[in-house]
Amino acid sequence: MVNEQYKSRLSAKSVIRELAEYATARGEEIGYENVFDYSLGNPSVPTPKAYDEAVISMHKDMDSMSLHGYSPSLGNTKVRATVAASLKKRFGIDYETKHIFMTSGAAGALAHAIRLVTSPGDEVITFAPFFPEYMPYVNDTGAILKVVPPSPKDFQINFTAFEEMLNEKTQAVLINSPNNPSGVVYREETIKRLAELLRQKQKEYGHDIFLISDEPYREIVFDGMECPYPSRYYENTLSCYSFSKSLSLPGERIGYIAVHPKATDADLLALICGQISRGIGHNCPSATSQMGIAAVIDQTADLSVYEENRNLLYEALTELGFTVVKPGGTFYIFPKALEEDAVAFCQKAKKYDLILVPADNFGCPGYFRMAYCIDTEKVKRSIPVLRKFVETEYPNR
Amino acid sequence: MVNEQYKSRLSAKSVIRELAEYATARGEEIGYENVFDYSLGNPSVPTPKAYDEAVISMHKDMDSMSLHGYSPSLGNTKVRATVAASLKKRFGIDYETKHIFMTSGAAGALAHAIRLVTSPGDEVITFAPFFPEYMPYVNDTGAILKVVPPSPKDFQINFTAFEEMLNEKTQAVLINSPNNPSGVVYREETIKRLAELLRQKQKEYGHDIFLISDEPYREIVFDGMECPYPSRYYENTLSCYSFSKSLSLPGERIGYIAVHPKATDADLLALICGQISRGIGHNCPSATSQMGIAAVIDQTADLSVYEENRNLLYEALTELGFTVVKPGGTFYIFPKALEEDAVAFCQKAKKYDLILVPADNFGCPGYFRMAYCIDTEKVKRSIPVLRKFVETEYPNR
Repeated sequence: MVNEQYKSRLSAKSVIRELAEYATARGEEIGYENVFDYSLGNPSVPTPKAYDEAVISMHKDMDSMSLHGYSPSLGNTKVRATVAASLKKRFGIDYETKHIFMTSGAAGALAHAIRLVTSPGDEVITFAPFFPEYMPYVNDTGAILKVVPPSPKDFQINFTAFEEMLNEKTQAVLINSPNNPSGVVYREETIKRLAELLRQKQKEYGHDIFLISDEPYREIVFDGMECPYPSRYYENTLSCYSFSKSLSLPGERIGYIAVHPKATDADLLALICGQISRGIGHNCPSATSQMGIAAVIDQTADLSVYEENRNLLYEALTELGFTVVKPGGTFYIFPKALEEDAVAFCQKAKKYDLILVPADNFGCPGYFRMAYCIDTEKVKRSIPVLRKFVETEYPNR
Repeated sequence: MVNEQYKSRLSAKSVIRELAEYATARGEEIGYENVFDYSLGNPSVPTPKAYDEAVISMHKDMDSMSLHGYSPSLGNTKVRATVAASLKKRFGIDYETKHIFMTSGAAGALAHAIRLVTSPGDEVITFAPFFPEYMPYVNDTGAILKVVPPSPKDFQINFTAFEEMLNEKTQAVLINSPNNPSGVVYREETIKRLAELLRQKQKEYGHDIFLISDEPYREIVFDGMECPYPSRYYENTLSCYSFSKSLSLPGERIGYIAVHPKATDADLLALICGQISRGIGHNCPSATSQMGIAAVIDQTADLSVYEENRNLLYEALTELGFTVVKPGGTFYIFPKALEEDAVAFCQKAKKYDLILVPADNFGCPGYFRMAYCIDTEKVKRSIPVLRKFVETEYPNR
């Protein structure tokens, strides 16, 4: 019999998907260049040529079985070693091959990480605003996602609310910095305070609390800054990475979990992920994408366009009177809507062919997200439209 | 805290993996050409050149976003249409795009299919001998795998035992023809009788019973036969396919579920799979592998070598006095061991550098599996060794 629980979800509409579909349909009507589609986080800069060249030469030169044969379920051993060496060099943490588990993107990484350190009924805490897919990612494992309300002044962690939420059932804390949707990068002091608090609570509760750090935007940081790497501050950290954004490869589904070498059971955790894989049909990411990213491990796509877009939008939004925290990274910006109901606000924006995403599902009603992974030229053209929208619909501000 | 249930599995040893590791280590010692490694089902014939050529031209000619951008979570729409059209032409069933859900291999297909048609506590029935991974595939969803004992005369379905096992909790029946490990292809009369019985039980229990048909070996059938396609005989069928074996692409993790157009909720089932994906971190298979298989949809690798190997081994084993059912397909053969304890039997074979897998985990103690996806030349050289092993260790037979 068809599973009713999953079936019932079909009636729940995805706001982002509906907006993206609307944008596509509207684009067919008036020309896609005239639709200012800020709905989707689909990288807009090309994959580095070296990736494509590596894939081409693999398919020209490697024998079929070495290229297309089964890779071990923890991932291609050489690729794992390459990832470990790169992280070790960059962050000064003694990662070895055994600490790396290759996954189908960040979704695959989180699917394993959550099952790895929780059992059904356990609680996982995350912080608003948060990526809405965290709901099924966590709740479908049987664990329970708890959301700490936002700290809208700077979208760092609301520690007062967090401390109230922590309890003996808390087995994991899920963070995402640089953050989707706010674009905010957690400051070093935020991570340090978080680490200190978790160490204290581990002692108090007498069990490990793992930090699951979702880091697909790790490389997209602005103003010459670096994103503080959470594993540097807390040993029980699982760093969950995807190459989707840094290499513009979201369709290839390639990422990893890096287990901190001093985490509890560090030498076993990747092996246990291999056991989890069996039940969720994961096995391993495609052999081609594994070897492809290994060939360009320390490269990224040209990410500078996102910073340029951030600058243009932050300036325009501020000038138009929006309350908005300056993003430190990603390709998102997260202003407060000009009326309480962000859904109504975004609905009005549609009349101007501005596609904005209301943030109710991100745990932050009253805000909206703009994904500025689009051409800079289009960002520029969108600014007068944004101005017209604001001046026409909200004349008395 | 680390999940103890998954952790405890690390102590359970995988017989196949241990044997494969032994074979590799032994190969390093005496030369891999001297180890007759029948342990692993890793295809030994090359991927068709056209697949590699398609991947090369995609990486040369397509723009980065069309190639590496997100594909929809149900799979690339054009690829789904290509799969539907190919199946429709071949099997005369009116598949459309909406009935196809692209997956990361057969493991991904089964992970979705089982969650799709069962809820925790429901029963799924399969038939011995069976692929041991069915245990975690089913039991990790919360459903319960029940195994019908084998019918060793021909390894078709033991209907007497099956009828006894069917009950109101049975929500799905999982078959695998051509079968791993027996190599047996279910005869049309077997499928027809199965379908008739399921229709009768659906009526009796007042609920659907889905047939989950695991078909990675569909194309590897010998003697000019065709494998009866279960969806032709029973409407509530989910055909789970992988290109791993037919195109020798196991590392690329690419397959699909084809929902019978007349199944209950046929138009919704792929969409519901999209919801299941969110919780298990699947998303979709890699964009490259999806477009790659679409480019060669009606091709296979040169599979004739498997038939040649089957002929050589069946003849030799029969001549040596083994009880063995002639495989109709796959690259497996499944003889009865020459003593009751197949583990002891395979242990003795190791002394002759013959790597055979005891079938206790396949639900068939006393039997062993040989995976003959190896060079024919090696199969030929293994036969005198097999003879020596049998004559030395079992002289009184």
